[in-house]
Amino acid sequence: MDTEASNTKERSADDLFKDFKEVSITEFFRKNKAHLGYSGKVRSLTTIIHELVTNSLDACEESGILPDIEVEIREIGSEHYRFLERDNGPGIPVEHISNVFAKMLAGTKFHRNVQLRGQQGIGVSGVTMFCQMTTGKPMRIKTSTGDGKVNAVKLMIDITKNSADMIEQVDYSEYWRGTEIEGEVKSVKFNLSDTGPYEYLKRTALANPHAKISLIDPEGRKTVFDRSVDVIPKPPESQKPHPKGIEVDDLVNLSKQTSANKLSSFLVGEFSRMSSGKVKEIQEVIGKEKREVKGQIVDVYKLDINKNPRKLTWAECEEIVKAIEKIKFLAPATEGLQPIDEDHIKKAVLNILDPEFQFVLTRPPKVFAGGIPFQVEVALAYGGHAGRPVEGGIKAEIMRFANRSPLLFDGGGCALTEAVKEVDWKRYGIKDFDNSPITIFINLISTYIPYTSAGKQTVAYEAEVVKEIKFALMDVARKFQMFYSKQRREGEKEARRQMLLKYGTELAEGLAKLSGKNVDAKKVYRDLTALIEEKIKLANELEMLEDAEDENGAAIPLEAQGDELIEGESEEKEE
Amino acid sequence: MDTEASNTKERSADDLFKDFKEVSITEFFRKNKAHLGYSGKVRSLTTIIHELVTNSLDACEESGILPDIEVEIREIGSEHYRFLERDNGPGIPVEHISNVFAKMLAGTKFHRNVQLRGQQGIGVSGVTMFCQMTTGKPMRIKTSTGDGKVNAVKLMIDITKNSADMIEQVDYSEYWRGTEIEGEVKSVKFNLSDTGPYEYLKRTALANPHAKISLIDPEGRKTVFDRSVDVIPKPPESQKPHPKGIEVDDLVNLSKQTSANKLSSFLVGEFSRMSSGKVKEIQEVIGKEKREVKGQIVDVYKLDINKNPRKLTWAECEEIVKAIEKIKFLAPATEGLQPIDEDHIKKAVLNILDPEFQFVLTRPPKVFAGGIPFQVEVALAYGGHAGRPVEGGIKAEIMRFANRSPLLFDGGGCALTEAVKEVDWKRYGIKDFDNSPITIFINLISTYIPYTSAGKQTVAYEAEVVKEIKFALMDVARKFQMFYSKQRREGEKEARRQMLLKYGTELAEGLAKLSGKNVDAKKVYRDLTALIEEKIKLANELEMLEDAEDENGAAIPLEAQGDELIEGESEEKEE
Repeated sequence: MDTEASNTKERSADDLFKDFKEVSITEFFRKNKAHLGYSGKVRSLTTIIHELVTNSLDACEESGILPDIEVEIREIGSEHYRFLERDNGPGIPVEHISNVFAKMLAGTKFHRNVQLRGQQGIGVSGVTMFCQMTTGKPMRIKTSTGDGKVNAVKLMIDITKNSADMIEQVDYSEYWRGTEIEGEVKSVKFNLSDTGPYEYLKRTALANPHAKISLIDPEGRKTVFDRSVDVIPKPPESQKPHPKGIEVDDLVNLSKQTSANKLSSFLVGEFSRMSSGKVKEIQEVIGKEKREVKGQIVDVYKLDINKNPRKLTWAECEEIVKAIEKIKFLAPATEGLQPIDEDHIKKAVLNILDPEFQFVLTRPPKVFAGGIPFQVEVALAYGGHAGRPVEGGIKAEIMRFANRSPLLFDGGGCALTEAVKEVDWKRYGIKDFDNSPITIFINLISTYIPYTSAGKQTVAYEAEVVKEIKFALMDVARKFQMFYSKQRREGEKEARRQMLLKYGTELAEGLAKLSGKNVDAKKVYRDLTALIEEKIKLANELEMLEDAEDENGAAIPLEAQGDELIEGESEEKEE
Repeated sequence: MDTEASNTKERSADDLFKDFKEVSITEFFRKNKAHLGYSGKVRSLTTIIHELVTNSLDACEESGILPDIEVEIREIGSEHYRFLERDNGPGIPVEHISNVFAKMLAGTKFHRNVQLRGQQGIGVSGVTMFCQMTTGKPMRIKTSTGDGKVNAVKLMIDITKNSADMIEQVDYSEYWRGTEIEGEVKSVKFNLSDTGPYEYLKRTALANPHAKISLIDPEGRKTVFDRSVDVIPKPPESQKPHPKGIEVDDLVNLSKQTSANKLSSFLVGEFSRMSSGKVKEIQEVIGKEKREVKGQIVDVYKLDINKNPRKLTWAECEEIVKAIEKIKFLAPATEGLQPIDEDHIKKAVLNILDPEFQFVLTRPPKVFAGGIPFQVEVALAYGGHAGRPVEGGIKAEIMRFANRSPLLFDGGGCALTEAVKEVDWKRYGIKDFDNSPITIFINLISTYIPYTSAGKQTVAYEAEVVKEIKFALMDVARKFQMFYSKQRREGEKEARRQMLLKYGTELAEGLAKLSGKNVDAKKVYRDLTALIEEKIKLANELEMLEDAEDENGAAIPLEAQGDELIEGESEEKEE
């Protein structure tokens, strides 16, 4: 068959390539604003609040300040709003204001392995972009580091240059510290739905009990989510990369930039858990080779740990990484991770959902992808205001958090949702999970959250992470099952007892009558009751056994209700 | 409560901002490679093949060439592969090679409204990046525009500069046209799962019946998906933006760049469906105001259509956009859209799934978000190899395509999946959709596919798009229902008939015997049969009625089975 066809004239390559253009990152996200979470009127407004509040929380946490955050949203036209966000954070040095608000891919967090809500250096500039796209208005920023000077600027983004277009810049003297951001946005909508700003702030408060957050909504209602603890979380610590987590490519890049003069000091200096002892081990593992030295053949180490690291070849770096895989290292330091902690979650959940039962668990830190430390916290709340009310009933609700930021969107493909789905809830006496008054709370913290997109709403499937979350959920589910079935059993037992005893009394009197005066009805009654209580005891023992059976009626050995089985389960999903 | 806490020392803003850095787009995607689809070993390999093949298909389509694409994947170590992709496309002019393969956010498609698989200018550079991250090896590219000169280069990306690092560049004389790309990648895996390269190419062939695609897999097996039609699709046409789709911001940007001297010619020149008549209408809608001219108060149009467009203010642009909203325009031109077309889909589906029934439908073009043209094609295949075999049965399968590219990942939150979920399949006699031997094929074509992420696997929820897909699905579902129940009815009818007739014969003979010689058994039989057929006719009529009832037994009026009802349904989901 002829692969040239006659029915269309060909266009030459040069013709096609006359359209070749390069665009700025800002132009890219302007065209693909959905990547940043600007899709849907409600979501777009929530995204704005999210970006501003997470930055305030990060800044306060890093500088050891108890956050005091005020948000105000006013409707000034149809789908047209003015918003204001104010914090008591450390403020922004004047020379950085334009980069923070009007330059994408610029920030303080990208290069560090540190547990913070922001990690991309895109978010806030995205707000500036979206506001100017919909209203043509600049952002107004007022900030002070507390040095007695307040800087107030109005700026926009020069889309093609990905840099600030400074419209006004004044400073005046005032002793105040913090940052206040004000902007105008159109084609968005405020509502109280569970994807709106109100719900977003509520959940943020839930996961940040040390923060005081207030909202004045378009109706003028003021809600204050006050802090339930006034301890400042220990500021998260940046960490050197862990040897097990590095790819050859990383090693090559680092070696080019280092100031160390020897490979050994380079390795010890750049990586956590790396010691000169470990460097020797690496050298050992790579092994020796025969070389001629002064006319003699001698065995020398292939890897020269004294060589200039800037002269490392890819092949050498590959050897080093291979060797590292074979060597044992201490797990990454996890002091950098800051869980919310069980008591704080308990307080917060109680305070917001007031459930019948709640079980909270913070798992010990673990590592994924070789060297990235992470930790999961989960809570299961049942009854009370737990679950999501829908018309005609209540549905189970999953509250997802990553480094204490609520994830309200795109739950479908998220690893956190996956983990909940992979738990066999029936096994824990929850016959119809989806339609139960249950709220599952999951907080994943890590120095790097593997989001699937710049919108930061979906966590990529990492087997180790999913497994940890599942273990945690199964643990709280087991606790729930014990309480729940115990409570149920108590109730039923009492009912049965009452019934039997009722008949018991009648029966006793009957017998007494029949068998003439000299029989003591009380004694007959006592004997009967003894008999009944005996029966109930048997009945309960029977139930215990039933409880240990899953719904297929197959008895599960106790250990099979534990982690062992799950190890197996979760392997399936791993590649 | 004191918001300063004593238990942690504060860090100053300047201290925090000493870490402030700017990163290149390549550094960004290098750290967040999951955004580009590089997560999971199988997916990562499929992503590479996807990026290379879509570029070849786009190039051939644009230059009117019947694509001939060869893919070869060889395993050269554990999780270590060498791949090669060769096309007979137009080739790449030498001065563009480095930008195509080693510069992100550069391409020929970003600025045009045209239906192509690629639209971001990231994909292929992403391949170069991922290969060098995992192997440190450059990409080898051999390309010629057919001018007798072949250019062969080896290049890598300078991550921090987002530009090519040219390692080798030679050219030699040879008459050949096309592009051949060869690379090496590690920590990926080839398999035949339904997310692997084989399935990807199979589906690509399904949606591109004019392409010949061959694969040599690591086992050395060669599979050829030959073209089933040898008509070249009409090259997609770039289109001017439609007035209804434009935001104030777009108008402002365009007006700054135009070479037109008058607002009127600017508008007519920049937008489709815009005429000088429409420009007058806009002027009318914006209305007049009183002005003093030569000492007299006169009514003049607020908008001066002769003014220099580069002098337009935001306010004026806003007025124009508001006016446009109130004016009727012809729908966007849709000639640019290239559906696969029903016959081609039929052939392809038959060829791959060989189903018992299949129904295919291409809906007329529509518009979303005001001005973006799109069109949907769907197919429903039942029986045969339709559906997804799983252990212990078969599950319904959804094959998603966007501009003819298969979407294999992240189906969860995808608008195409949503549309399938929103159809009430029971209504069409499919009682348990998820567990039926059904394959749903959906191809969404548009000049702009609203993906939720740079990974381009999930389409954002656009109400108009979802509604169109639902209409199309319901249409094929209705056809399916008719055939299916008809076929079922035929079968049952025949069975009943046979049974009755069998008894009929015996009965006839019996009667004949009883009533002596002079009775003709045949006649008795004829009478009986007549009676029976009569009964069957009645029975069938009864059935017809039953079929018009849904499973709740409530009769559905015919129009309620039509679109009207769905309009209602889909409104719910719209904002």
